[in-house]
Amino acid sequence: MTEYPLQWKQMTVGVCYYPEHWPREMWETDLARMKAAGISVVRVGEFAWNLVEPEEGVFRFDFFGDFLSLCAEKDMRVILGTPTATPPAWLTEKYPEVLNVTRDGVTYRHGARRHYNYNSPKYRELCARIVEQLAVHYAGHPMVVGWQIDNELNCGVDEFHSEADQAAFRAFLRDKYGTLEALNRAWGAVFWNQTYTDWAQVYPPRRVPMDGYNPHQMLDYSRFVSESAIRFCRMQADILLKYAKPGDFITTNGMFGNLDNARMTRECLDVYTYDSYPSFGEAQSGDASANEFRDRESSRYLTDVRGICPHFGIMEQESGMTLLPAPAPKPGQLELWATQSVAQGADFVSFFRWRTCPFGAEYYWHGILDYDSRDNRKLREVSAFCEHMRALDPVCGAKSAAAFAVVKDFDNACDARLDSWHAKVQAFSEREIFAASQYGHAPYDTVWLDGETPLAALTAYPVLIYPHPFIIDPQRVELLEAYVRQGGTLIVGCRAGLKDMDGHCVTRPLPGLLSGLTGTDIREFTFEDAREPFTALWNGEVVRMPVFDEILTPAEGTQVLARYASNGYAGEAAVTERPLGRGRTIHVGGAFGRDLVKKLLAHAGVCEPFRDIVEAPEAVEIVLREKDGRRFLFCLNYQATKQEVRLKATATSLYDGKCLTGRVVLPPYGTAVFEIEN
Amino acid sequence: MTEYPLQWKQMTVGVCYYPEHWPREMWETDLARMKAAGISVVRVGEFAWNLVEPEEGVFRFDFFGDFLSLCAEKDMRVILGTPTATPPAWLTEKYPEVLNVTRDGVTYRHGARRHYNYNSPKYRELCARIVEQLAVHYAGHPMVVGWQIDNELNCGVDEFHSEADQAAFRAFLRDKYGTLEALNRAWGAVFWNQTYTDWAQVYPPRRVPMDGYNPHQMLDYSRFVSESAIRFCRMQADILLKYAKPGDFITTNGMFGNLDNARMTRECLDVYTYDSYPSFGEAQSGDASANEFRDRESSRYLTDVRGICPHFGIMEQESGMTLLPAPAPKPGQLELWATQSVAQGADFVSFFRWRTCPFGAEYYWHGILDYDSRDNRKLREVSAFCEHMRALDPVCGAKSAAAFAVVKDFDNACDARLDSWHAKVQAFSEREIFAASQYGHAPYDTVWLDGETPLAALTAYPVLIYPHPFIIDPQRVELLEAYVRQGGTLIVGCRAGLKDMDGHCVTRPLPGLLSGLTGTDIREFTFEDAREPFTALWNGEVVRMPVFDEILTPAEGTQVLARYASNGYAGEAAVTERPLGRGRTIHVGGAFGRDLVKKLLAHAGVCEPFRDIVEAPEAVEIVLREKDGRRFLFCLNYQATKQEVRLKATATSLYDGKCLTGRVVLPPYGTAVFEIEN
Amino acid sequence: MTEYPLQWKQMTVGVCYYPEHWPREMWETDLARMKAAGISVVRVGEFAWNLVEPEEGVFRFDFFGDFLSLCAEKDMRVILGTPTATPPAWLTEKYPEVLNVTRDGVTYRHGARRHYNYNSPKYRELCARIVEQLAVHYAGHPMVVGWQIDNELNCGVDEFHSEADQAAFRAFLRDKYGTLEALNRAWGAVFWNQTYTDWAQVYPPRRVPMDGYNPHQMLDYSRFVSESAIRFCRMQADILLKYAKPGDFITTNGMFGNLDNARMTRECLDVYTYDSYPSFGEAQSGDASANEFRDRESSRYLTDVRGICPHFGIMEQESGMTLLPAPAPKPGQLELWATQSVAQGADFVSFFRWRTCPFGAEYYWHGILDYDSRDNRKLREVSAFCEHMRALDPVCGAKSAAAFAVVKDFDNACDARLDSWHAKVQAFSEREIFAASQYGHAPYDTVWLDGETPLAALTAYPVLIYPHPFIIDPQRVELLEAYVRQGGTLIVGCRAGLKDMDGHCVTRPLPGLLSGLTGTDIREFTFEDAREPFTALWNGEVVRMPVFDEILTPAEGTQVLARYASNGYAGEAAVTERPLGRGRTIHVGGAFGRDLVKKLLAHAGVCEPFRDIVEAPEAVEIVLREKDGRRFLFCLNYQATKQEVRLKATATSLYDGKCLTGRVVLPPYGTAVFEIEN
Repeated sequence: MTEYPLQWKQMTVGVCYYPEHWPREMWETDLARMKAAGISVVRVGEFAWNLVEPEEGVFRFDFFGDFLSLCAEKDMRVILGTPTATPPAWLTEKYPEVLNVTRDGVTYRHGARRHYNYNSPKYRELCARIVEQLAVHYAGHPMVVGWQIDNELNCGVDEFHSEADQAAFRAFLRDKYGTLEALNRAWGAVFWNQTYTDWAQVYPPRRVPMDGYNPHQMLDYSRFVSESAIRFCRMQADILLKYAKPGDFITTNGMFGNLDNARMTRECLDVYTYDSYPSFGEAQSGDASANEFRDRESSRYLTDVRGICPHFGIMEQESGMTLLPAPAPKPGQLELWATQSVAQGADFVSFFRWRTCPFGAEYYWHGILDYDSRDNRKLREVSAFCEHMRALDPVCGAKSAAAFAVVKDFDNACDARLDSWHAKVQAFSEREIFAASQYGHAPYDTVWLDGETPLAALTAYPVLIYPHPFIIDPQRVELLEAYVRQGGTLIVGCRAGLKDMDGHCVTRPLPGLLSGLTGTDIREFTFEDAREPFTALWNGEVVRMPVFDEILTPAEGTQVLARYASNGYAGEAAVTERPLGRGRTIHVGGAFGRDLVKKLLAHAGVCEPFRDIVEAPEAVEIVLREKDGRRFLFCLNYQATKQEVRLKATATSLYDGKCLTGRVVLPPYGTAVFEIEN
Repeated sequence: MTEYPLQWKQMTVGVCYYPEHWPREMWETDLARMKAAGISVVRVGEFAWNLVEPEEGVFRFDFFGDFLSLCAEKDMRVILGTPTATPPAWLTEKYPEVLNVTRDGVTYRHGARRHYNYNSPKYRELCARIVEQLAVHYAGHPMVVGWQIDNELNCGVDEFHSEADQAAFRAFLRDKYGTLEALNRAWGAVFWNQTYTDWAQVYPPRRVPMDGYNPHQMLDYSRFVSESAIRFCRMQADILLKYAKPGDFITTNGMFGNLDNARMTRECLDVYTYDSYPSFGEAQSGDASANEFRDRESSRYLTDVRGICPHFGIMEQESGMTLLPAPAPKPGQLELWATQSVAQGADFVSFFRWRTCPFGAEYYWHGILDYDSRDNRKLREVSAFCEHMRALDPVCGAKSAAAFAVVKDFDNACDARLDSWHAKVQAFSEREIFAASQYGHAPYDTVWLDGETPLAALTAYPVLIYPHPFIIDPQRVELLEAYVRQGGTLIVGCRAGLKDMDGHCVTRPLPGLLSGLTGTDIREFTFEDAREPFTALWNGEVVRMPVFDEILTPAEGTQVLARYASNGYAGEAAVTERPLGRGRTIHVGGAFGRDLVKKLLAHAGVCEPFRDIVEAPEAVEIVLREKDGRRFLFCLNYQATKQEVRLKATATSLYDGKCLTGRVVLPPYGTAVFEIEN
Repeated sequence: MTEYPLQWKQMTVGVCYYPEHWPREMWETDLARMKAAGISVVRVGEFAWNLVEPEEGVFRFDFFGDFLSLCAEKDMRVILGTPTATPPAWLTEKYPEVLNVTRDGVTYRHGARRHYNYNSPKYRELCARIVEQLAVHYAGHPMVVGWQIDNELNCGVDEFHSEADQAAFRAFLRDKYGTLEALNRAWGAVFWNQTYTDWAQVYPPRRVPMDGYNPHQMLDYSRFVSESAIRFCRMQADILLKYAKPGDFITTNGMFGNLDNARMTRECLDVYTYDSYPSFGEAQSGDASANEFRDRESSRYLTDVRGICPHFGIMEQESGMTLLPAPAPKPGQLELWATQSVAQGADFVSFFRWRTCPFGAEYYWHGILDYDSRDNRKLREVSAFCEHMRALDPVCGAKSAAAFAVVKDFDNACDARLDSWHAKVQAFSEREIFAASQYGHAPYDTVWLDGETPLAALTAYPVLIYPHPFIIDPQRVELLEAYVRQGGTLIVGCRAGLKDMDGHCVTRPLPGLLSGLTGTDIREFTFEDAREPFTALWNGEVVRMPVFDEILTPAEGTQVLARYASNGYAGEAAVTERPLGRGRTIHVGGAFGRDLVKKLLAHAGVCEPFRDIVEAPEAVEIVLREKDGRRFLFCLNYQATKQEVRLKATATSLYDGKCLTGRVVLPPYGTAVFEIEN
């Protein structure tokens, strides 16, 4: 696994702060109160272009200069944001070509954020200049410890249709394909007579009848958007690198669509940070489709983040109500959510935000302090969290223990946004694997696969579930085969191996390039008939075969683990296993229901990994972080009622240093962290 | 209360008529039949620009001249509409700048109505000219009794994005703020780097990503749209005033969004008229969310209209099916709805329309007569209503009795359209207060508060409910305080005092400027958790605390009326009361459920105001109008079954002059009006 | 009935093939395998413009020339498609005026299909040229047997707003109305002051506020779109006719909106073909609104197709999953669906497509062969179907027996798309008449009425149901009257006779021009109140009177068959009958519920037409085709379980030549075709 610099030498708590939103006379008190609460870092500046360049080419450095001086005085570290997510009004009014445009040709305008495009030469020029100006003036400041590039790249808007984007897409394609013949082939342009005979005919996907878009063009367009965002990020990173002090880090925050976050992190960033808002899973939907996991579902996203960067930070940790609406965090819940981040691998947690902004589009995006600035319950919880974080210092840098890993990759992530079949099975399986993992106390890691993934990134896990690799290429198959040969258990589901890297369906028998590993041959497949749900029998027990079903005709040497028990598929192979070297490949002919995942994990011998240490109800999340032979057990209670876990080993509570074993009660929304005796 | 001229010297029935839709030879018969039914006024002309100005600058006056002559002959009074809601094709084709444009830049085109903008200088010039021409030629006509300006200002479309609107919005802001510094401050422009450095950068809210609009800009934009409509209305009123005969009135019809109807009425109109379509509450929705009140809900809107203009008219009273679809009015229902209008304060009722138009977009917008022109049940009901109206003449000018008043204001009305939290609580509380009022036979008035509201407008009521004044300013607080001091009971709900007039949240403890009155301090608040509904205990009885909940920490001298009984809030203050002078302020920490409203009214001593006069089931609406010491009791049965009320006093039925007491039966959809003996 | 040339001299099975999608070396094997399966025709070329004209004005004929040579060698007949549904990129980039534009002004772009408009002179010129080039070079080829014009005209997009369409609409209206006075009258332009004073002011319906479109303009616009498509089709047909060999046919495929398919077929085509995808009725909707009929509903569409062309073909017969998603066809279902087409009148069935395309927007639109080209279950079913088709040869050209006919016409079809009331009743009645017909084993025909329909087209049926002829004209009434006089039973439902051909509501008593036939007079009508469903009593039995209800006051001589039994309508006439000549007209005052249809058919003596031949459960569809005194009975089982029918006559199974009577079992999804002994 790539070793990112561990930016966080100790458990660190920060907060997002907007000095420009408050009278200067409040700064000092605010910083003092932060420090008193245990906060040691503030993030500032990411929407403050005008304060530095109030008119084109005129730069002023007093504002953040003054603020940094005060921080030095108060011993407060600073992460500086580059302000490129919100160009000034003078900029967009003078250079409207920097604005983004919808697929239908509507230009996004000044008045919110993220209305610019990444490819306008003028915007890149103006961004480069302000970033350089900021770096020149502030990078050497002793209180500056890191830089955040832009803010939430691709958040909300991840399509770009300005003229600059059209030109850049064309250049991206020329670079990728060299010739129109190659592009026509990759895009299957012969279908519906789309063949291009001049580069000038090539565009991003513009409005077509019936949304009948070319899927290969769309796939390339997703990659292009990702490439554009990464180039934009890299441009800034390259500038910052020239000026940043040794040890200072470069990051950006958030995990949004059409963006290969793992590659961006590898290529441009020192460390990755995420914005965690667990109440998004709490929103009142008023119907039965309410999210089963509520706030707990954030552990799924945090697991994906950990896959990008093992020791990540949280740049924005929810500290109150957002616009949704959802109920305010209950007593304890704010700290629960912050501890959830730490359990999943964050060693830096920065709350969003110090005080709710009383104006602007986010005036209901609540901070720690309310509009009235008074001490309150949220501040008390933040203080308590800071105190706990100090006690958790031994955990800093510890690795999260995983029973298995789920494999993901950017190409399939794009495809699952574009291909409605892919979307359907992938969304289902991800949710259900998470459910099985959570309720079974068998945490997993996410491994982001790409051309640069080393074998060691896989062999760290006894079991890999690569749920639905619709798209796969020989290089990845080779890697997976090496993983299996050395003793791994690879599990793939329906539609595996369907497409090549251009998104064309393969013309060899399915599962295509994976056939050698699975030892199966698919000749029949269907969407599940909602009126006749599919099931299979595994050792006499019924399991669901949800969403999409394939008959897996086994080759010689392939063993059948489960057979369909319903509809026309009864008796046919539903789950198979094929040995190879010291390992094996399990092929599931459907999506992954939680009951099936449970069976698979048991079969692979990786369920209940902590059964010797702890016994916990489903309502409690159990996570283990390990470092230098020390084991730290996190117990998180997401319920409004107290929950009991039973420690089977002797353990020391990190919060209070008490040594204990046996029954331990977690209060409502309570957490505990134990160091397990060896 | 402002004394509007009582335009209606006697109960008057009118009808909307479109002479241009019918062969001239039908006019005479139509007028004769109207007269025979008891109709004495027709409204004409409001979509007939082409008949007067068939080409630019060429005016013809014969059409309405001939029609007015016939009216003189038939003794039919006429209300003339100005035709500015539907510019001619020649106009919009030659001057496309007069058209309105959507937020995304799509121009509305000729082919329906209301596709113009208020701010185009050319359109204002052409409108001024045709209005003046009409006034010059017809205002002196003896049959003309009034003028309707345009038609349903802001109906359907209440956003404007033409270049003329952009320029006018900029001018509006320059006028309001003087400097960009002031505008930037008011708009919180420092948030998301929106700061404007040149007026040319300032626009109406155009498309931005994720609908992340600046709420202060939006609020100003709503005010600007209202201002534009009022200026457009005033421009016409000023012209008409120059020519109108003494005693003739100027009005417009309808109550639509982004328009301060109270101010428009005060500044531009002699009297306000409304278009009442109770079947809008009858639409088949096919699901459980069907409107509980159906046609009866119109009483809520009529109450708001009465707040704008105590003795209003109905310019369009529904006389049949509309496009919705909803069932046709049942026998009696048409008259019920017209009587509902009179009960709520209308002394003039004009049916829409004499005969259904057999062509055009409203061919399913049914009139009294059907396409076939024959006498029918609807005409018989209209005749019966006219006869009743003659008997109701003593009621003309009588004031509606109200147990209490609900306070509204234009700023909060705008805010409730823009702020989704505000929308949620306000919509809930309005509906529930109406329910409590209707089922408890405790009618209320609406008081529209603005900078010109006199104290007397408030002191007319023993109790004011100002449900959710998110926005409030010192001047209004002062007025409310004076109201309380003199002996009033003021009731406010959650989120009161949250914002200032710019829509910024206040930084003092909540309820902000209202704290002095409420004697409360809010430190905790939350949206209700749908999975754990909030309740409170009031004198041992459980009441719901719906939608949004605040803990009201009482100051010394503030009494707790109810305490939360659920979730984490149990035991905390939910409803408080604080005395001041001879009055008191009651603070409710949530939205207003009907059970709570009932308790509040009982507590304030204003429930069942008519209990000495009448006893009625919930299904019957009870309204009292008073004049010169005489009391007129309206009983309205909205059910398909007969209903019984019990008169506790001796009373005379106005319909038939019979004197009676005790049990009275209302037929299905039947009404009765009694003069109560003193 | 118009006698179309019976193109299909024998039962024929074809397949859609795209030689351009495959390496040339696969062609030979593909053709050989098709032939082996029993396929004798391929459709090719309909999206292959670039292969013939790779740059403007440069034509190449080798590609299809080579393919045709190979077909000659393999004895495979060919239907050639004209490629005008997918203009090349070089064309749309050079001539953007050929593109279609949305109502809001968004241009559809290259990248899918059907993004062009019919009226651009440049596009018509370029289309004419390529069609002529194709015809010149290939029409004489001995293997070519027919031509398909374009592909699925109006599919997906059936509105056109380019400048060329605006000009063409204006020309269409000038041609239709001659003067603006006539247009203004027809469009009811006096309503809302829409009067046009210059032709330049006239446009297709562009965006207006609140979707308040002029319904008469919309109706004309629908006719214009149809006219445009037909002219475009005719332009191509005229060219093809010049070159086509005698006996070769010209067709197009599909049945889409805003297109008078019957007229297009009559005026431009030799024969009509349809694209049948029964799985569209199978889509998982996940809720209770799932389509009751699932795949069986296609029989309804096929019945409409048969009304356009009695011996039609299926150009695209579903052979696998589509994008929906829906379950894959179960074993037998593919053949069931193909046989469904034959039962309903198709003598030519061409599967879509030979092999699933592994790339492009339709890569989930499955063909017979999967991506891997291997023999599979679908190919076996196609082979079995081909074998059955050879056995069905005696049925070729046989007429489908119908118990009654449903009358439709293009004007009302347009109106039902534009008028929400019309849409509501028509959609309900169509579905319910189909239900009654299917479950009662009483198949019907669709008769498409227009100005050229001969009386004989009606007198072929003892009973006509013309459910809701909102629009009707004297000529059609005359025809219907002649039908009744000669002995027919005409049944019409609510809203019959409401409008004239301009879509104006008539001003005579309803049912307007139909009053003479129905002997009824409608003075009261209403949408059903969902809270109080309407019912009627017919001979003491309750029937539902759904959706919309009219009181049918009977004239003297009109008999009342059923009276309302609910709400305010109780006791009034709900269904009436009036004799005329040897026939009668039945008037239903509502929409047609299935229970009412059953009663009407029984009353008219046309229910259970095959009761002497067969007894079948509701789950089995029964169809009879007749020719030269021979009767062929189709039994189609749509269930996953076997079903039993009882033959009451002696019969010979066409599939296996066995003679049998009494109980016959149909396997799951099984079919049987019997020749009934006379």
